[in-house]
Order: sequence, then structure tokens, then C-alpha cells
Amino acid sequence: MSLKITTPQQARALLANYDYFLFDCDGVIWLGDHLLPSVAETLALLKKMGKAVIFVTNNLTKAREDYLRKFELLGIPGIQKSEVFGSSYALAVYVDKILRLPKDKKVWVLGESGIESELHEMGYQTLGGTDPALVENGVAFDPNHRLLTDLDPAVGCVVAGLTTNINYLKLSVTMQYLLKDGKLVPFVATNIDLTFPLKGKLLIGAGSIVETVSYASGRSPDAICGKPNQSMMQSILADRPGLKENPKRGLMVGDRLNTDMKFGRDGGLDTLLVLTGIETQDAVEKLDPAEAPTYFAEKLGDLFELTR
Amino acid sequence: MSLKITTPQQARALLANYDYFLFDCDGVIWLGDHLLPSVAETLALLKKMGKAVIFVTNNLTKAREDYLRKFELLGIPGIQKSEVFGSSYALAVYVDKILRLPKDKKVWVLGESGIESELHEMGYQTLGGTDPALVENGVAFDPNHRLLTDLDPAVGCVVAGLTTNINYLKLSVTMQYLLKDGKLVPFVATNIDLTFPLKGKLLIGAGSIVETVSYASGRSPDAICGKPNQSMMQSILADRPGLKENPKRGLMVGDRLNTDMKFGRDGGLDTLLVLTGIETQDAVEKLDPAEAPTYFAEKLGDLFELTR
Repeated sequence: MSLKITTPQQARALLANYDYFLFDCDGVIWLGDHLLPSVAETLALLKKMGKAVIFVTNNLTKAREDYLRKFELLGIPGIQKSEVFGSSYALAVYVDKILRLPKDKKVWVLGESGIESELHEMGYQTLGGTDPALVENGVAFDPNHRLLTDLDPAVGCVVAGLTTNINYLKLSVTMQYLLKDGKLVPFVATNIDLTFPLKGKLLIGAGSIVETVSYASGRSPDAICGKPNQSMMQSILADRPGLKENPKRGLMVGDRLNTDMKFGRDGGLDTLLVLTGIETQDAVEKLDPAEAPTYFAEKLGDLFELTR
Repeated sequence: MSLKITTPQQARALLANYDYFLFDCDGVIWLGDHLLPSVAETLALLKKMGKAVIFVTNNLTKAREDYLRKFELLGIPGIQKSEVFGSSYALAVYVDKILRLPKDKKVWVLGESGIESELHEMGYQTLGGTDPALVENGVAFDPNHRLLTDLDPAVGCVVAGLTTNINYLKLSVTMQYLLKDGKLVPFVATNIDLTFPLKGKLLIGAGSIVETVSYASGRSPDAICGKPNQSMMQSILADRPGLKENPKRGLMVGDRLNTDMKFGRDGGLDTLLVLTGIETQDAVEKLDPAEAPTYFAEKLGDLFELTR
């Protein structure tokens, strides 16, 4: 049974219980371009209390800088780059700290600039990605294209995620690196979301792009750096040794049972579900105890409103 | 146990046993651009004996006319369009004769001109496919593109196959039609080959393109018009009532156990494996009896050479 946070005592006890607060963003901090009520005050309170906050998002086409701008624009100043954990950054941490890919190896990218810039900051050289040579023929496919015929032996990792600038050349070159060296080059995906919601439509998600090359090459990704997959958690723990030592001091806050709550639970953290996203109180109360979040609340801002 | 055809008696008995001969092409009739020995003579012999011949191929980007040109170029004149059964034609027959899609419904095509022209000949209007509007922005994706925002309510079927001129718009519009009407619009694929061999490389096959939209939409194709799938056989039988009445009068000839031989066997036909493609006598002799072809031979041309 999940405990609903409705009284000042419950809110204070929750705040006292945890040192690390991991947040999903959309549906928790904001809804699209609108900040949710009392969120800025809740985050300020947590920081004043010396809590660590980490924003965990599967969005990967954006670099962390773009996220910081969104926080500022919505009226939450002072968020640090190190507090934002997107799939792209998680992926770069994973390649560096978990895979320990040597820095003289190159990373082939099927994806956009978010992944590239995080890998560059980590000291890796990337190929593919936003390289204009990949799209110089537009959608027309040239089987003799130099990027397909002259494969780079220094590629030691293939990463894949969402890109809307897809063409057959990008997919086919990615396929070659996946098949290279007896299919032993590590293959890391950002997330496996089937669909990508945009302007009221369900478009092709990162997971479906990953699936194309995965299916064609007969290889599943070795790691998936997006919620609820635990490669994302491994990246966070590799980056935050304090949390690693005592996961029970961390609370995962999110609006989705099958991604955020599962992510926290599988990582050994307690969980708080907020009802400002897609889930309802009715759904929470019907959950099997093994799948129920530790707590739930109408909104994140209740932590501030109940304790002021 | 498969019977190896090595004597004139065996070859004559085989020829007498069947009225319909279904052939895979690459590895049986030709290898790449080279005609295999005594194939032209064998085909001439079959026609002289009044046998029906049908060429069954999973290649779908080409229209049947292109196949006829290949036969002529290699020195096999007089093959009729009605004797060539490619995935594209099989798909058009399937839409017309099995699905019985009304002619006032339109077909959305993720694929190339081969599919379009076969559907047009069958009397259907197509959308998508090689429409230049789909690639007017090249690989750049515009979420407000009119093809994505103004969906055509007359679309009553979605077909998908190999296209190398892929972009995110094509995939995303295909996704919308797959989700339309509670996912009830019929979804037909040409074949599910994972890879597409080209110039010594394994590129992204039709099946991997189909998989992208299949995975994203959560829908498997309702029919797959390529060997070994029996939707291809249903199309052939719908087109050839004589064979339908007595499948045992038909012989499927091919070079691959897992596509051609499985295709014939699952369709109730006897089968002849030729060793001019990828299989070996050793592999045939080790087969479980349930998976063994009825006959095997060094090459198709042996039917002529042994009986002349």
C-alpha cells in the first residue's frame, strides 16, 4: 500500500528521510511549457535543507545546457548542469565509467547533437551523428558512399537514439559497425521508447529507430541509458558515489508507474508518484503491493505547501 | 530422406509427376548476373512439355517488367509477365483477391515503385510511395508537413516493404495510418528479410524497415507476401486456380531450405533443392526427415542434361 502525503507531519517525515531526490521532469516539474504549482518553492526548500537533487530524463536530443535554459525560462534559476541527468549524459557516463572505453577509440553515433556533445565533453571523438556528409545526398542512397565503404577501424562503440534526420545511409553504416569484429563492438542505446509524442501525434520513438538496426543486425543493445532501464541508474550511481553507498537515502519522484516508479524501485530507491501526469489515485490504489510506489501525492508542490 | 536426381529415369519421372514448376531465381536460374548451366534448355523443355512455370521472388523494388528484361538479357526469351510472381505482385494480388479491398479505397505505400505499379495495374490508387512531396525536405523533418497533418480518410490499407529513400516523415505518416481506426486498417508487408545484401555488404532489409513501423505502432503485419510466408502462396493459388485444386501437381524449386523449401512444403507442394546456391549435399543428408526436400539435384539444368 502506498502512503498518500496529505499532512504536514507526513511531508516533514518524507523530507527528513532522504538525502537524494531524483526527479522526472515532464508531468512532475512542468507540463509541456507550464511550470506546475509550488514546484520552484519545493526545489528551493530542498536545496535550503542541503538535499541533492537530480533531474532524470529520457529526452536525449537536447544537451544539458538546453535543459538548464528551460528551467530558467520557467522560473527555476540556479539549476546546475551536474544536476541534470539526461539519456545523452547518462550514455556518455556509461561509455566512460562503466564500459571504460579507451579515449583513443571513436564512438559511432546514430543520433543527434545531444549525444555528440556529451561524448565530446567526456573526451571522446565521435563519428556519424550530425556529420553533414551523411545527409549530403538527402534521402537518395549511394551504396558507394565513402562512409559506407571506408569504415573506421578505430570505432570501438556504437550508440543509438532518436534522430528525425534519418536516412538509409545512416542506418546502413550503423549496421556495418554493429556487425564489425564478430558483433563485439559495444552497442548502447539512449532509451527504448516506442513512440515520440509531438503535437498530439505519436511519431517514431528512439526505441523504434534503435529497433531497426537492432533487428537488422540481430543484436540487442548491451545497455539502455533511459528509464526504467538500470543502465541509467548505473550511470547515476557511478557519477554519485554517495548515493551508491546507501540507495535508501534516495527518493525517485515521477508521474509514470511503468518508467519512473519502476526505475526507482529496480534501483533499490524509495519512490514518490505524483498525480500531475498520467496516473490516477484510483490506479495507484488498485496496484499490486509489489508494484505500488512508497508514497504518492497530488503534486510535488505539496511538499512545500504542507510544510510552510 | 530426399531423393537425389542423378539418372535419366529419375529425371523423367520427376518431369512426369508435376504440372506446375515454381522457381526461386537467384541461386537456381542465375547467380547474380550469370545464367546457370542448361537452365535455358530446361525451361524450354518444360514449356515444350506443356508445364506451367512460375518464378517466385522476394525481390520487390523491381516491377515484373524489369524481371522480364533480366531473363531476356541472360538469354531466356519469351517469359511472360504472368509467369513472374514477385513480392510486389503477390502483395497486389493479396490486397485485391484475399483482402478484397474495395477499389474506392486507397493504399498507403511505404516502399518503392514496384509496389505502386502493381497496385495501379490492379486498379488501386496509391498514396505515399514515390510521391516527391514526401522527400521535398530531404532528411529534414517538418512536424507540420501536410501529409502528416491532413491524413486521407480514404486510406483502407497500409503496405510496407524495402525502400532506400527512407526518411522520418515517411515512417511517421505510415505510423499514423497504422494507428488509424483503432489499428484496424489492414497492414501488409512484402517480406521480412532482415538484411539486404548489396556489393558484399549486409544493408537494412525490407523486414527491418517493416519492423520500425511495426514496433512503433505495436502492430505485426496481417500478411507477409514473401517466401516462406504463406500469404505469398495464397496469392499464387488465388491467381492459379488449377494449382489450388491439386497442390501435389506443383513442385517448388529453390536453393534455400529455410525460405524456398519451407515455402513449398508449408504450401503442400513437393520440393526440389538445387545445390547451386547456399546449401550443400552434406547439409541435406543431415536434415530431419520432416524438413528434408522431396528431391535434390546438383543443379536445375540436370533435368535437361539427364533427359536429352
